[in-house]
Amino acid sequence: MKISRFPVPEIATLPEDLRARILAVQEKAGFVPNVFLVLAHRPDEARAFFAYHDALMEKEGGLSKAEREMIVVATSAANQCLYCVVAHGAILRIRAKDPTIADQVATDYRKAGITERQCAMLDFAMKVSQRAQDLGDADFAALRAHGFSDEDAWDIGAIAGLFALSNRMAHLTGMQPNAQFYEMGRAAPPRDGAKR
Amino acid sequence: MKISRFPVPEIATLPEDLRARILAVQEKAGFVPNVFLVLAHRPDEARAFFAYHDALMEKEGGLSKAEREMIVVATSAANQCLYCVVAHGAILRIRAKDPTIADQVATDYRKAGITERQCAMLDFAMKVSQRAQDLGDADFAALRAHGFSDEDAWDIGAIAGLFALSNRMAHLTGMQPNAQFYEMGRAAPPRDGAKR
Amino acid sequence: MKISRFPVPEIATLPEDLRARILAVQEKAGFVPNVFLVLAHRPDEARAFFAYHDALMEKEGGLSKAEREMIVVATSAANQCLYCVVAHGAILRIRAKDPTIADQVATDYRKAGITERQCAMLDFAMKVSQRAQDLGDADFAALRAHGFSDEDAWDIGAIAGLFALSNRMAHLTGMQPNAQFYEMGRAAPPRDGAKR
Amino acid sequence: MKISRFPVPEIATLPEDLRARILAVQEKAGFVPNVFLVLAHRPDEARAFFAYHDALMEKEGGLSKAEREMIVVATSAANQCLYCVVAHGAILRIRAKDPTIADQVATDYRKAGITERQCAMLDFAMKVSQRAQDLGDADFAALRAHGFSDEDAWDIGAIAGLFALSNRMAHLTGMQPNAQFYEMGRAAPPRDGAKR
Amino acid sequence: MKISRFPVPEIATLPEDLRARILAVQEKAGFVPNVFLVLAHRPDEARAFFAYHDALMEKEGGLSKAEREMIVVATSAANQCLYCVVAHGAILRIRAKDPTIADQVATDYRKAGITERQCAMLDFAMKVSQRAQDLGDADFAALRAHGFSDEDAWDIGAIAGLFALSNRMAHLTGMQPNAQFYEMGRAAPPRDGAKR
Amino acid sequence: MKISRFPVPEIATLPEDLRARILAVQEKAGFVPNVFLVLAHRPDEARAFFAYHDALMEKEGGLSKAEREMIVVATSAANQCLYCVVAHGAILRIRAKDPTIADQVATDYRKAGITERQCAMLDFAMKVSQRAQDLGDADFAALRAHGFSDEDAWDIGAIAGLFALSNRMAHLTGMQPNAQFYEMGRAAPPRDGAKR
Repeated sequence: MKISRFPVPEIATLPEDLRARILAVQEKAGFVPNVFLVLAHRPDEARAFFAYHDALMEKEGGLSKAEREMIVVATSAANQCLYCVVAHGAILRIRAKDPTIADQVATDYRKAGITERQCAMLDFAMKVSQRAQDLGDADFAALRAHGFSDEDAWDIGAIAGLFALSNRMAHLTGMQPNAQFYEMGRAAPPRDGAKR
Repeated sequence: MKISRFPVPEIATLPEDLRARILAVQEKAGFVPNVFLVLAHRPDEARAFFAYHDALMEKEGGLSKAEREMIVVATSAANQCLYCVVAHGAILRIRAKDPTIADQVATDYRKAGITERQCAMLDFAMKVSQRAQDLGDADFAALRAHGFSDEDAWDIGAIAGLFALSNRMAHLTGMQPNAQFYEMGRAAPPRDGAKR
Repeated sequence: MKISRFPVPEIATLPEDLRARILAVQEKAGFVPNVFLVLAHRPDEARAFFAYHDALMEKEGGLSKAEREMIVVATSAANQCLYCVVAHGAILRIRAKDPTIADQVATDYRKAGITERQCAMLDFAMKVSQRAQDLGDADFAALRAHGFSDEDAWDIGAIAGLFALSNRMAHLTGMQPNAQFYEMGRAAPPRDGAKR
Repeated sequence: MKISRFPVPEIATLPEDLRARILAVQEKAGFVPNVFLVLAHRPDEARAFFAYHDALMEKEGGLSKAEREMIVVATSAANQCLYCVVAHGAILRIRAKDPTIADQVATDYRKAGITERQCAMLDFAMKVSQRAQDLGDADFAALRAHGFSDEDAWDIGAIAGLFALSNRMAHLTGMQPNAQFYEMGRAAPPRDGAKR
Repeated sequence: MKISRFPVPEIATLPEDLRARILAVQEKAGFVPNVFLVLAHRPDEARAFFAYHDALMEKEGGLSKAEREMIVVATSAANQCLYCVVAHGAILRIRAKDPTIADQVATDYRKAGITERQCAMLDFAMKVSQRAQDLGDADFAALRAHGFSDEDAWDIGAIAGLFALSNRMAHLTGMQPNAQFYEMGRAAPPRDGAKR
Repeated sequence: MKISRFPVPEIATLPEDLRARILAVQEKAGFVPNVFLVLAHRPDEARAFFAYHDALMEKEGGLSKAEREMIVVATSAANQCLYCVVAHGAILRIRAKDPTIADQVATDYRKAGITERQCAMLDFAMKVSQRAQDLGDADFAALRAHGFSDEDAWDIGAIAGLFALSNRMAHLTGMQPNAQFYEMGRAAPPRDGAKR
């Protein structure tokens, strides 16, 4: 199956910085996630996208890395984005050390067995993702009632916003997830032994 | 996690026919799918539901068993039904001998790499599921153009209809899938070696 | 006008149990409601459907028979199901002994002059029918506040679920109501003299 | 049941022209339709409304009077307007000399057994009523293909527009239909003997 | 650009009363707003429309004239009605003596810097405009909590209703705003010096 | 009025590269657009956003700069984003040398008097913006039929995607446009003398 409607560059032909980044990912993951190859068709946009991604997903802050991936999975499922649900679902399973969490959050996060705080986080993220124009002070108050700071609110909303872009790029390009993602993290120990 | 908002009967206390059915499933699958226990709270309704299910899902006809499960997974995902997506996703993986097909059909069947005929089948099923009032002659003609008979059209529509009921019962009861379903069928050989 | 897109069996050719059931209905009602003929094209599915129907609509419980028909009429109208609105509208008029109730509940149950308890029942039923994925504990609490038990909640939700299936079968088959239903129960005494 | 959330004037206290109009309607119909009393709370607006109504509903033109009432019933049902569905449903039954047509058009005009030309008329009216912003040249072409003139298109669209206003006034005021409307025209001869 | 899909009459050929009205508007505004020419194709409907308009927009009452125009602009924007947004946006700027208010109310009235009372007024108007069937006692109570009388509620709802009609007529006719409206009122002093 | 729900940094305190960029914009425009100050609260994200913006909006290609701004205005209006509609509306007026184009594209681009090619461009952009999951080969074919290349399709979709993010950040932060934007470009010569 083609991984993009658009031309996909050879890694060797890419600008040095993108090539280095991709080779580093490949060394760590054992394969090159298709998003790198598909977006690298436009190097300037790719650089900006990955910089934005890292600024939100790799930073310190009030949200755990697993929680950030929950936001990606829940909002991407609402947008029916196959690439993001499958790829970030894998990362979510790994970061949460939970083999079932991604399918739960993707299908219906309200039945996912996550904490009430995490559910409030996803309520906020889904509102930003699906009808941001209705966002109001009450939504921020609901986050605060669960102990989220204003900076956490920015993180939650900005991640939902970044994947509003990312999901649309995946639909535009017809981006296909790598086969490896489907199975990653499914053999982890069951949830009760993990801290999310 | 509770598997139902309503009381869940002990298998030993169930009417003989339901108990026999459940024990047979348990022997075959190695566990009792929660839908049997949750619906058995109302034995008469449970009998009718499983009779309806078998009449549509176990019969011969123009649709393969894997294709029938595709209909269940695609329409249940549109209805955000965790139980049906996870349990029937497992059955779909097994029947299609394809470890990735369920996640693809659940998230965006139009990017699932299925045949055009299967895509037309799911277009029809989704219309029955989500806006049946708009169904018209053109929808039946589209099925015929892909070689489906009128009896196949009934099958497709009736499966979508039955799971419109099933998804609502799952949401009403807060039905949770068994942990086993999440992993079933994921170790099967990759798709290229399988016939769907 | 054709009553179905699919072949309609002769009563004489039907399996004995279905034929007996249909003849019993005919004797009582004076005609054979088209749903029996249309669904009898698939005897196994027809048996399951009618068994499910009777288990929910003919049982004892906290809901009156008129109230159960209200659920059918309100949710079927939301699904634009001509057969169910007209046929169950007739039954509702008869069971409620009220010639105007069905048109009111079908068009806008919130202005139907029913009790607040009945309105809460229909709010719950409509949520199950139209967006069951949003159902939460607050919806069950709202029912309890009007004196409904958990078993009543199951009844309300399951009736809405069954007619989610039924409405889809009617749209799939292009089922037409019998002419008799339109007028049945319209000559009953006005509402004030009736108990619903 | 109250017929309006707002004060309802005594007929005797109304300005002479409105009183004369209402008494004329009462003499002809045998009762005063509630819309006259409810809207007469604001005489200037009432005069404008009835003048607009008569300009569209009582004029000559390419649409029969029954067809104009079909537009009112179909669009008012989409807006869940109890008053307009019930009152204009009665007028439709009488003008079409058909006891079942109103329930059919209100519930699902695509299954109402009307002509293809009438169905095209209602498709156009429903688009004006529900998403007028999407109206384009193709919609006018579809009308012309069924023999409608441009003036007919104006009539269809303007009736849908006027009842967009009327339905909203009915919801604003909580307007209730007179009991008489529910039964009017239901004893007419069956459809086959009538010309619509 | 054509201002209407339908024939546009010459002013000289119009009935005396419409001609007089149009010439009076022209003298005051310096041009003839296209709505007069487009609707005058049907003199009886035009008279009724303008009578209805004046009864609601020119009367005394609890709403300022600027506030009435806010209702028109907000609801017309929701209906994507170019004529009404541009023409009434101009009138709103003039009546509010505020060059930015119209763009704000049209795009997102919740961020328009208007008073909470005005925001409640627009919440009510938008509900009448977009989903009047959901209007209930709580909506009227919300208005009262901001000091609106029941007569004010009628005004707000009726203006939203009238422009539900007006917006549909503009889409039906493909009505184009006069070029003059785009710029009118944009040079007014900034908001802080004005009373709305 | 506050321009953000979050802290807004002093320009002097910003990292050198952001400060230099902002001062350059200020020198050119005569003021600092609020988006720079609001997003600079998070310097890493701000850098990525502006890099992405420039990669799409400042590049050469098949779309004129005015056309790119049309995409921003149309999709931002659909998302009710006050900042983007007002700020990019100003830029659109200037780049198109047309004082009315922004209000037209924001309210209803199908009535904006733009070319059919531009209308096809906005149809595609709106689909990416509002329901990207439905994007299919037919949508790309429609672009090609108007002479757009595949690279143009990427540009159109990516701009719609970037502003899906941008609109959500504006709603998250409650971003307010500078007063200057409302009036910019409104005194330009009328459209007929301009090339878009």
